[in-house]
Amino acid sequence: MKIAVLGTGGGGRAHAARLVELGHEVFVGTRDPEATLARTEPDMMGNVPFGNWLAEHPGVTLLTFGEAAAAADEVVISGIDGHSAVAALSAIAEPLAGKTLIDYGVPYVYNPDAEHPWPTPWGVMPKLDPCDTDSLGERIQRALPRTKVVKAFVTQEQETVVDPAAVSGEHTMFVAGEDDAAKQHAKDLLEAYGWSDVLDLGPLVCARGMEMYAHLHSAIGFALGFGTPFGIKVVR
Amino acid sequence: MKIAVLGTGGGGRAHAARLVELGHEVFVGTRDPEATLARTEPDMMGNVPFGNWLAEHPGVTLLTFGEAAAAADEVVISGIDGHSAVAALSAIAEPLAGKTLIDYGVPYVYNPDAEHPWPTPWGVMPKLDPCDTDSLGERIQRALPRTKVVKAFVTQEQETVVDPAAVSGEHTMFVAGEDDAAKQHAKDLLEAYGWSDVLDLGPLVCARGMEMYAHLHSAIGFALGFGTPFGIKVVR
Repeated sequence: MKIAVLGTGGGGRAHAARLVELGHEVFVGTRDPEATLARTEPDMMGNVPFGNWLAEHPGVTLLTFGEAAAAADEVVISGIDGHSAVAALSAIAEPLAGKTLIDYGVPYVYNPDAEHPWPTPWGVMPKLDPCDTDSLGERIQRALPRTKVVKAFVTQEQETVVDPAAVSGEHTMFVAGEDDAAKQHAKDLLEAYGWSDVLDLGPLVCARGMEMYAHLHSAIGFALGFGTPFGIKVVR
Repeated sequence: MKIAVLGTGGGGRAHAARLVELGHEVFVGTRDPEATLARTEPDMMGNVPFGNWLAEHPGVTLLTFGEAAAAADEVVISGIDGHSAVAALSAIAEPLAGKTLIDYGVPYVYNPDAEHPWPTPWGVMPKLDPCDTDSLGERIQRALPRTKVVKAFVTQEQETVVDPAAVSGEHTMFVAGEDDAAKQHAKDLLEAYGWSDVLDLGPLVCARGMEMYAHLHSAIGFALGFGTPFGIKVVR
């Protein structure tokens, strides 16, 4: 399949590399491909410049967000950060219309004046917006009524999402969304990634719990020690 | 040990009954014991009137919140609802001073004008206050600086907290707090209840993730079907 991955950070790269491995044709979307390729320094998470990564990943094509979405047959994966996602995705509503958008963004609050402008699990406790009475997944769905939004992947590091065996022992992945066929796309991808326990939580309102789990995920990660792979298994 | 359990609902009853079974002397606290005993109708969760329950549980003594806290050797378990907890516990700061308070409240928003005044996992999606940048556990600790607050039990139905084997397969319980000796009290209780996997998340700030997990817990519960016992296991 032709699959689009929006975002050039570590999460997007993990999906892109794995999807190529699985035989898909991958179109990575970024705001400004020229600017992305011009970067020569590692990004804020320490990832090598995207151009270097791209050179080692034949089968991946870098395009604008809109071009990548248009190139996808049916499935678009978005790792655009929660702060920018609604605006960036609304701007490409046309190429996204009718397609499945799998969103794994966490709506971390961005505060450029703070010591940690992006409070992430790796720095301080996360701060989320929206939270509790709304979710990023629901916001994206409201902004894109012609697109079938699925929330998935968000409860886990993306490196582990594409390789669940990084954790020894079966653990659980969650999906939520309004459209069953769109959720099936996400489930099929997860099965191809190696997941054996995927729990469909039901409607997109469940994205709230999936996004708010960021706090517990961070706390567990801190407790086990940075970099320790872990997952949660729903025992039933 | 003499242990106090504050709250006469299903959660408090589950702890009280199990603690008696384990050989402890249990003092259940309520706002107004006379009013509690005068009730002849099931409560909003369908529990039988407390007086009926009490008659079948020798070893449990009903007292006021303050009297029950004073009667405890070291450990007080609070299931007072999140809406009332800070005020009710602040009013008994003296008998709680120096003791371990294990709080399992979820700070559900109470809105008497709404169709569901208590948005709970059993009705609609929970709404929490505080949330994200604060927690009920931290609020209680700030209100009671002389008490050692531990957040625990909150990620699970209390019937399962006191009987983890209700779920087939090992699952994980979390504790958080500033005082190691107080957390050890909670861990000892959990071990006595039958828990084999207790993860100490560290400082009380982790209560945020534990309380906010209410959303994901509800979503999982809805997905599996009301009443299906489940737990989450941190696989690592």
